[in-house]
Amino acid sequence: MDVPERARAMVATDAYTMESRDIPIPRIGPDDGLLRVEVTAICGTDWEIWGRQSRGAGLGPLILGHENVGRVVAVGDRAAQRWGVAVGDRIAVEEFLPCGTCRLCRGGNYRICEATDSRGGKPFLRYGATPLAVAPALYGGQADYLYLHPRSIVYPVGEDIGPELAALYVPVGNGVRWVVQEGGLQVGETAVVIGPGQHGLGCVVAARVAGAGRVIVVGTARDGDRLEVAKALGADEVVVAADGTSPVESVLDATSGRGADVVVDLAPGATGTVEDALAMAGKRARVLLAASKHGRAVAGFSNDLVVRKELVVRGVRGHDHRSVEPAIDIIRSHRFPLERLCTHRFPLEQAPEAMHVAARGGERGAIHVSVVP
Amino acid sequence: MDVPERARAMVATDAYTMESRDIPIPRIGPDDGLLRVEVTAICGTDWEIWGRQSRGAGLGPLILGHENVGRVVAVGDRAAQRWGVAVGDRIAVEEFLPCGTCRLCRGGNYRICEATDSRGGKPFLRYGATPLAVAPALYGGQADYLYLHPRSIVYPVGEDIGPELAALYVPVGNGVRWVVQEGGLQVGETAVVIGPGQHGLGCVVAARVAGAGRVIVVGTARDGDRLEVAKALGADEVVVAADGTSPVESVLDATSGRGADVVVDLAPGATGTVEDALAMAGKRARVLLAASKHGRAVAGFSNDLVVRKELVVRGVRGHDHRSVEPAIDIIRSHRFPLERLCTHRFPLEQAPEAMHVAARGGERGAIHVSVVP
Amino acid sequence: MDVPERARAMVATDAYTMESRDIPIPRIGPDDGLLRVEVTAICGTDWEIWGRQSRGAGLGPLILGHENVGRVVAVGDRAAQRWGVAVGDRIAVEEFLPCGTCRLCRGGNYRICEATDSRGGKPFLRYGATPLAVAPALYGGQADYLYLHPRSIVYPVGEDIGPELAALYVPVGNGVRWVVQEGGLQVGETAVVIGPGQHGLGCVVAARVAGAGRVIVVGTARDGDRLEVAKALGADEVVVAADGTSPVESVLDATSGRGADVVVDLAPGATGTVEDALAMAGKRARVLLAASKHGRAVAGFSNDLVVRKELVVRGVRGHDHRSVEPAIDIIRSHRFPLERLCTHRFPLEQAPEAMHVAARGGERGAIHVSVVP
Amino acid sequence: MDVPERARAMVATDAYTMESRDIPIPRIGPDDGLLRVEVTAICGTDWEIWGRQSRGAGLGPLILGHENVGRVVAVGDRAAQRWGVAVGDRIAVEEFLPCGTCRLCRGGNYRICEATDSRGGKPFLRYGATPLAVAPALYGGQADYLYLHPRSIVYPVGEDIGPELAALYVPVGNGVRWVVQEGGLQVGETAVVIGPGQHGLGCVVAARVAGAGRVIVVGTARDGDRLEVAKALGADEVVVAADGTSPVESVLDATSGRGADVVVDLAPGATGTVEDALAMAGKRARVLLAASKHGRAVAGFSNDLVVRKELVVRGVRGHDHRSVEPAIDIIRSHRFPLERLCTHRFPLEQAPEAMHVAARGGERGAIHVSVVP
Repeated sequence: MDVPERARAMVATDAYTMESRDIPIPRIGPDDGLLRVEVTAICGTDWEIWGRQSRGAGLGPLILGHENVGRVVAVGDRAAQRWGVAVGDRIAVEEFLPCGTCRLCRGGNYRICEATDSRGGKPFLRYGATPLAVAPALYGGQADYLYLHPRSIVYPVGEDIGPELAALYVPVGNGVRWVVQEGGLQVGETAVVIGPGQHGLGCVVAARVAGAGRVIVVGTARDGDRLEVAKALGADEVVVAADGTSPVESVLDATSGRGADVVVDLAPGATGTVEDALAMAGKRARVLLAASKHGRAVAGFSNDLVVRKELVVRGVRGHDHRSVEPAIDIIRSHRFPLERLCTHRFPLEQAPEAMHVAARGGERGAIHVSVVP
Repeated sequence: MDVPERARAMVATDAYTMESRDIPIPRIGPDDGLLRVEVTAICGTDWEIWGRQSRGAGLGPLILGHENVGRVVAVGDRAAQRWGVAVGDRIAVEEFLPCGTCRLCRGGNYRICEATDSRGGKPFLRYGATPLAVAPALYGGQADYLYLHPRSIVYPVGEDIGPELAALYVPVGNGVRWVVQEGGLQVGETAVVIGPGQHGLGCVVAARVAGAGRVIVVGTARDGDRLEVAKALGADEVVVAADGTSPVESVLDATSGRGADVVVDLAPGATGTVEDALAMAGKRARVLLAASKHGRAVAGFSNDLVVRKELVVRGVRGHDHRSVEPAIDIIRSHRFPLERLCTHRFPLEQAPEAMHVAARGGERGAIHVSVVP
Repeated sequence: MDVPERARAMVATDAYTMESRDIPIPRIGPDDGLLRVEVTAICGTDWEIWGRQSRGAGLGPLILGHENVGRVVAVGDRAAQRWGVAVGDRIAVEEFLPCGTCRLCRGGNYRICEATDSRGGKPFLRYGATPLAVAPALYGGQADYLYLHPRSIVYPVGEDIGPELAALYVPVGNGVRWVVQEGGLQVGETAVVIGPGQHGLGCVVAARVAGAGRVIVVGTARDGDRLEVAKALGADEVVVAADGTSPVESVLDATSGRGADVVVDLAPGATGTVEDALAMAGKRARVLLAASKHGRAVAGFSNDLVVRKELVVRGVRGHDHRSVEPAIDIIRSHRFPLERLCTHRFPLEQAPEAMHVAARGGERGAIHVSVVP
Repeated sequence: MDVPERARAMVATDAYTMESRDIPIPRIGPDDGLLRVEVTAICGTDWEIWGRQSRGAGLGPLILGHENVGRVVAVGDRAAQRWGVAVGDRIAVEEFLPCGTCRLCRGGNYRICEATDSRGGKPFLRYGATPLAVAPALYGGQADYLYLHPRSIVYPVGEDIGPELAALYVPVGNGVRWVVQEGGLQVGETAVVIGPGQHGLGCVVAARVAGAGRVIVVGTARDGDRLEVAKALGADEVVVAADGTSPVESVLDATSGRGADVVVDLAPGATGTVEDALAMAGKRARVLLAASKHGRAVAGFSNDLVVRKELVVRGVRGHDHRSVEPAIDIIRSHRFPLERLCTHRFPLEQAPEAMHVAARGGERGAIHVSVVP
């Protein structure tokens, strides 16, 4: 394929502000590559990064977009061999660019690599969160081309699914890692998913795949459509947390008072859901915390409940090849109507609008929002 | 040995009230037994149970004392075979009387047996917490005789240590289970113990036994003597959380900013220690919650810290044969100067005074307080 | 229901010899019960026990049958509460009668309870393997009534499946435990099942339920029908180990040379299958040994292959509530055409014929053989 | 430090043949470095690699030596930062040079990296086993200089222990990984080590550090001195497998018939020790296979014993940062008289003699044999 000289990118310059810019494409050497972005999907983290731009703690102008699928337009010899890809292949690109040498990378936890994770003001090196100042700038999917760094981790996705469906490798991969690999869901157990956004629905799929006995999804009145999709994906029961009904009671009823075995909290910004999660969990249950609360403390966190029931409360962040590879196989199997998650798509110029729709997901019936450069 | 007709017990009749009573000793059949109590030690839970008596949610009059060591004075044929003990043997008695048939018992978690744990007003069946109304009433160590229920779990302790030292099977057993078996301490890791009471010191011993690279103990200004004992048991460093110094900083300094691998919170009633524990823990660290906060919520519980560092926060309660058997071997090995924990002993009639001393442990330099019936 | 005075049982008196006998039914007390056997299914172990009768190491006359389903005809008050059953309920009965107090029972491994497992000539206390000499003799399903011992573990199976299908709780429960709980099958992994008998097919179901990416079944030329059933249950590929084709090559081909993640060997008496299992396993794979080799050594066991690939080779035996409860739910879900396993049924008098058919399973197309008393 | 132009190396040219050669030292760039070798210790694998040279399957001429300690004489900027070392530092060098991108590296198992492990005739990329033909040739410790490849993993060892003691990072690191991290040794358990060579003694130390209740070492009549060292390191009991005594009986006696919890087989070339290991293991015990049997099968491998006792048999190979970092701390702590392992040292020219002494360890009382270039 021909490699163009310049990429067109939507650059997040300040909080909730973007501008279109042309950015030079670097020469590709033996160890790196270039991707023609087909789809970059939006996730809650994007909104958080965007908003942070104005707070001084911002990362400087950057290109958002870390759920990326596209075609390889250039790849160096060594990179091609290492990645097992050729020009023209459709691939999904892992958001992490791990250092490979810190204790976390060496121990198999490159998701939270000491060197490339943000800390104390130091910016990330990661797709969708790396400042423009880091050469060659093209580290976000909200652009027609994405730089493939030598340390990229890529997943061939084949031709039997389109790029929009393929971009679900993130929510389904997260589901596999959170519910199954970290949550330790056993065949026959009861899983509760609080928050039916794209990641919550990925958890429903993962729980079903791994043999959950019962899957219960908890949402709010604004989640109407999402809860329908949850059912279509195989949720046994959906609970609307509304005035006068407690999701805790519903889960206890559904489990004959014994409580759930695995509970995943995915409600961004809400802290009461963590308290609910502890309350609806059974003895020795695992409670996965996977949502950002935007710095808010869980004021009613009951230490005594955690002790009395010997709960395991785990924080989880992101995914890796062990969860994304099976996730792609699940998507390709067409066992689940995952196309129902793909509710919105926007051209590149409308990336800001796409971000707003994704951020107010419930209201607009949005689940998985794609930008198609 | 002769089996007397009546036992003398201190009965907790109301909050912070006890009276001495004579209680008939039942006839021992083939499946049960009788213990002449030599030492019953006091733990924080005793104080909580005692205080609860007045709140209506009380269990009714009962005999406290669940860390019991004594000699078998009678034992049925079948019990003798099942327990591997004979009349005259010195044994420690597990506090739990598990049903043996619920899913938790069958899965090896009889500590939190569904049937004999307290729930919704239903009393426990457990030593030191069973109402006098449950025949034959003698379910607490604060008496000269203790009934050995057919479902008792007992540990022969031999003759080479005295009963007071033997009664440390609870704090050392808890340490083994909490720090090592549930906390997953690896050889070379850094463990932090917050709260140097008897259980905290048991955790220090367990961390040392299991090959911790570094053991740090966090206390308050009132813990002076306890921190000295912590050092004698092998703590590498003790940190006094006082005005102007944060234990979090100390732990981060001691670990080159990386944070601890295992943190155990053992500070009864205090909730800031849980927040500290999260802050001083490194990525993928395990935080064990082992103290009762008397119903107080941890108001500053940071969900985002748990997520960002992928922490594992586990509630832990009690011990079992897998931790108590090695604990007894550790005590018998004399590898640690555990006699320094044995600070106070009282005759049976002074059980109320013993309870008060234990409850205000730090002030009086008390660690392990024994009642010697 | 009326409790009769005598049961009619087929008693295995010597190797490959049985005779019909009448046996008095004991009076049922508060802690035990009586089952009207509806179906007792036959497993390879039965044949082994039967054959052993003549070797001097035999257990003495006994009633075979440890995969039992039936209706409760009598149950004591305490037993009814403990088991959660009433007269008239259809239940499956666990084969194990664990002591409840040895270290294995206490640790959740009652399947291999120290006290009731056979060792050094001491007989089992277990359904289908307990000598007639142990009162009240009715410890095998090849009889119209089965004694429900106070330590029985029972599973209500409901009315929506018949007893023959319900009796599959053993092979499906074994599959869940062997492939998933002990084999640690992860979502997306490749599982190989060597030996498509009832337990092998149970493993296929379990692998599918737990999200295996690919399930390969290895059989011999005589397994024709069984391999068809394997496909119907969801096996992706079946391999016939015949002259000139090696199942090892087939598995390596199917996994691009990487090898399988989980391999279960279920071929009774054959030892080459263990060697194959090691050869077809990938690095860090788990190899489950679940078949009896009737005392034959695996002469070509390659230590060096185990070391080079860091294989985990585990012996597995039987199941427990954690695997049987989800197994019953799987059977009841009708997700799999499990009725295809139910190939043969015989009246009680023809128990010997049923045993012979089951033992030469492949030849006769037999998979799950039931005796219907 | 000055970087010389040429290194002097002992090159293994054919089986049991070596010659001294001068090899040009490459220019060091930003990502690599150079080590002045102080000590290279010999392990059984060296002998195997050497002997294989003549079998056609040989790797071609190469420099042996993969247990290397020395001082950094040159290091590139980026390498210095990545490794945290400076010129003049004493470091131990991991033998593995993992690719960093295969599934095993990504999952934390870089020891058995798909890309750099030997397979199907393809040579290793690994210290002490890389052909001279791979530039810049200096991949073995039996030379005065060792090339530090960009993917090297290095451990600073400080100045408080000498290089010979530091070179014990391999046997002690192996012990930590095999007995504790893979063997899952629990506090209080019984560990048996078969074969008291340097790795076996490393296992004794690791078992002691991790809180084993009892450590038993099994050797042969020729192991006299080694067994004395085992005792000095803390073994509770040593068993000499000689005519008329079975180590299996000794272990069963020592464990009241229950069997060991963890057994490590380290007897190179012997296969009966694997059979012994299975026989002396208790129910649910873990048996670690860590020795090469030089291609010999374990003819008496009892599948049925593995099944009956639900044994876990694991192959283990090498170590990693999680085991070597604590191993270095253990060596530095001087808690164990590890200098007793350091029995022999030879100048570089006598590397062949050193190899012979190490290979016939028992006879000559050799344990840890060092070459000091």
